[in-house]
Amino acid sequence: MEHQSNNIVMEKIKVAINGYGVIGKRVADAITLQDDMELTGVCDVVSDWRINMAVSKSYPVYGFDQPVNNQMKEAGIPVMGSLDDMLQTADIVIDCTPKKIASQNIELYKKLGKKFILQGGEKHETTGHSFSAENNYETALGRESTRVVSCNTTSIVRTLTALKNAGLLKKARGTLLRRATDPWESHLNGIMNTLVPEKDIPSHQGPDAQTIDPSLDVITTAIKVPQTLSHLHYWNVQLTRQTTKEEVLRAFANSTRIAMINYSDGLPANNTVKELMLEMGRPYGDMYEVAVWKDMLKVQGDELFYAYIVDNQAIVIPETIDAIRALTGVEPHAEKSMRKTNESLGIKQSFY
Amino acid sequence: MEHQSNNIVMEKIKVAINGYGVIGKRVADAITLQDDMELTGVCDVVSDWRINMAVSKSYPVYGFDQPVNNQMKEAGIPVMGSLDDMLQTADIVIDCTPKKIASQNIELYKKLGKKFILQGGEKHETTGHSFSAENNYETALGRESTRVVSCNTTSIVRTLTALKNAGLLKKARGTLLRRATDPWESHLNGIMNTLVPEKDIPSHQGPDAQTIDPSLDVITTAIKVPQTLSHLHYWNVQLTRQTTKEEVLRAFANSTRIAMINYSDGLPANNTVKELMLEMGRPYGDMYEVAVWKDMLKVQGDELFYAYIVDNQAIVIPETIDAIRALTGVEPHAEKSMRKTNESLGIKQSFY
Repeated sequence: MEHQSNNIVMEKIKVAINGYGVIGKRVADAITLQDDMELTGVCDVVSDWRINMAVSKSYPVYGFDQPVNNQMKEAGIPVMGSLDDMLQTADIVIDCTPKKIASQNIELYKKLGKKFILQGGEKHETTGHSFSAENNYETALGRESTRVVSCNTTSIVRTLTALKNAGLLKKARGTLLRRATDPWESHLNGIMNTLVPEKDIPSHQGPDAQTIDPSLDVITTAIKVPQTLSHLHYWNVQLTRQTTKEEVLRAFANSTRIAMINYSDGLPANNTVKELMLEMGRPYGDMYEVAVWKDMLKVQGDELFYAYIVDNQAIVIPETIDAIRALTGVEPHAEKSMRKTNESLGIKQSFY
Repeated sequence: MEHQSNNIVMEKIKVAINGYGVIGKRVADAITLQDDMELTGVCDVVSDWRINMAVSKSYPVYGFDQPVNNQMKEAGIPVMGSLDDMLQTADIVIDCTPKKIASQNIELYKKLGKKFILQGGEKHETTGHSFSAENNYETALGRESTRVVSCNTTSIVRTLTALKNAGLLKKARGTLLRRATDPWESHLNGIMNTLVPEKDIPSHQGPDAQTIDPSLDVITTAIKVPQTLSHLHYWNVQLTRQTTKEEVLRAFANSTRIAMINYSDGLPANNTVKELMLEMGRPYGDMYEVAVWKDMLKVQGDELFYAYIVDNQAIVIPETIDAIRALTGVEPHAEKSMRKTNESLGIKQSFY
């Protein structure tokens, strides 16, 4: 398939998705919204409603291996072949399989000479490159592979990069209240009426942010909380100098993926922000932006305090789309890729 | 009634409690454990199971006013009189009425010349003195009144005073995950599957700690979380110098009301610590101590990170007992009062 860009007819990037779960299904939908990408298949191991939804969207469905293919056929799913077959159709594969599974697929991708993108559950070393569009798009250009960092890490790099670029960031210390599990599987798994600290200080997100930008002086702590909607971050940033709230807001405004919300505007909690996304018609009520409370944000001398919400199911979707353009080199400029992605997904800096 | 102390026969302090709720009933029980105090009455406005439990413990029960007395009589409660009558029996009254009610009772206490103690829901200005035993017991000696600060503030002052006394504290920044409501009334009130930030930064606990010790450079942020067991605090402290974890642990060990727990010892969450208290036979599973995770605590250069649990129903009970001794002047030394209180309640620095 072809598309027009600057009056030159270009091949669309052929993208396959391995793993059709919380992230995979969102990446699939996002790819169908890009004029320079084509979804050539999705691959999974399940034969239930989840993969039937891909069929109903006319996505080409592949089974992981022959036994899975047989199960899918028995379930009446029009299976196109196995993972190997799907990979033949694609220029690049997005691995959205569960944590720690992806690393087992890497050899296959390499053997077939396919570029690949892993998600944040995998280690930095699996690809040797970690990706966050506003920070390091250019360093991924033409690479064979990258890892889109996790939802929490993405939010950290996005916000701290904005402060760093404004010359304001000295060091940042964050406390992360992590949603206990994803809503669709909260019947299997979760926590109730308690709080579960992550044992290690620093928690893994701070060091993970440094895989993208080693210059970030960032330390995180994290706690699992009994809710499923989204993460909530609290940050205390030591600035390089005394400044004003207005200057900080201008720094954040330089990121196209940070949106400001106001507590006093009927948005005092995670559930209200989720409802706003649903009312905006976002698929799944997804929020791709980091939503920072403008009226809570406080500058005191050379210290900055703020809180924001991270939609753990959604924030990495635009990052993954940009990573596809970076690895394939179809768009050398981060800003141009992000602009395309932002427009296609309706990403904005102010929700209304 | 009389008791022996240093071979001198002394009058016991006569203590009355106005408000027999979450705090009031615990203070009442704690007073009956002190050899230098006598509970002369408890006063409330309800006529249901709550006040019947006071009757079953043989506490003299008073109704707030004549209408309440009538209701109590109708409910078969052996009511001794009204608030005015109860106050006649006492040297000191502990006001444990709901937030903002206590300030309306002050004039009555003053008119009758009774010393009084308010709880942390009231403003500092109501008494002009805020109390935390390990920090400022002596400044309350002989005063007419004080305010025992809230559970969160008590924990903050306790921990930061320990660091300050060791010469380690420069400034402290804390994120407080607050239990949404108390267990006994979670059918009335609460939050579910969301997180509710406190709008203002700093949240009120930091400035509240400064009512006890203005020298504390402390800023807090706070979030209500959907659980009822206890609060969870995360702290990042800027130390005066580089130090070791061992020195920090020694500083905390100087407080008799900070207990160390280990995550790796099967205590990775608030519910497990609650179960430990219940298994120890603590009334209501109460924890009077601040429980700091020893194996999570981290020193990095001149920064300190730690997390701890605060039992919001229990931590102020020993403080209130000490405040009684301070106001009445029966014990001029903080350490001696605290030792008595600690022994009577079974307060310890290590739970097993």
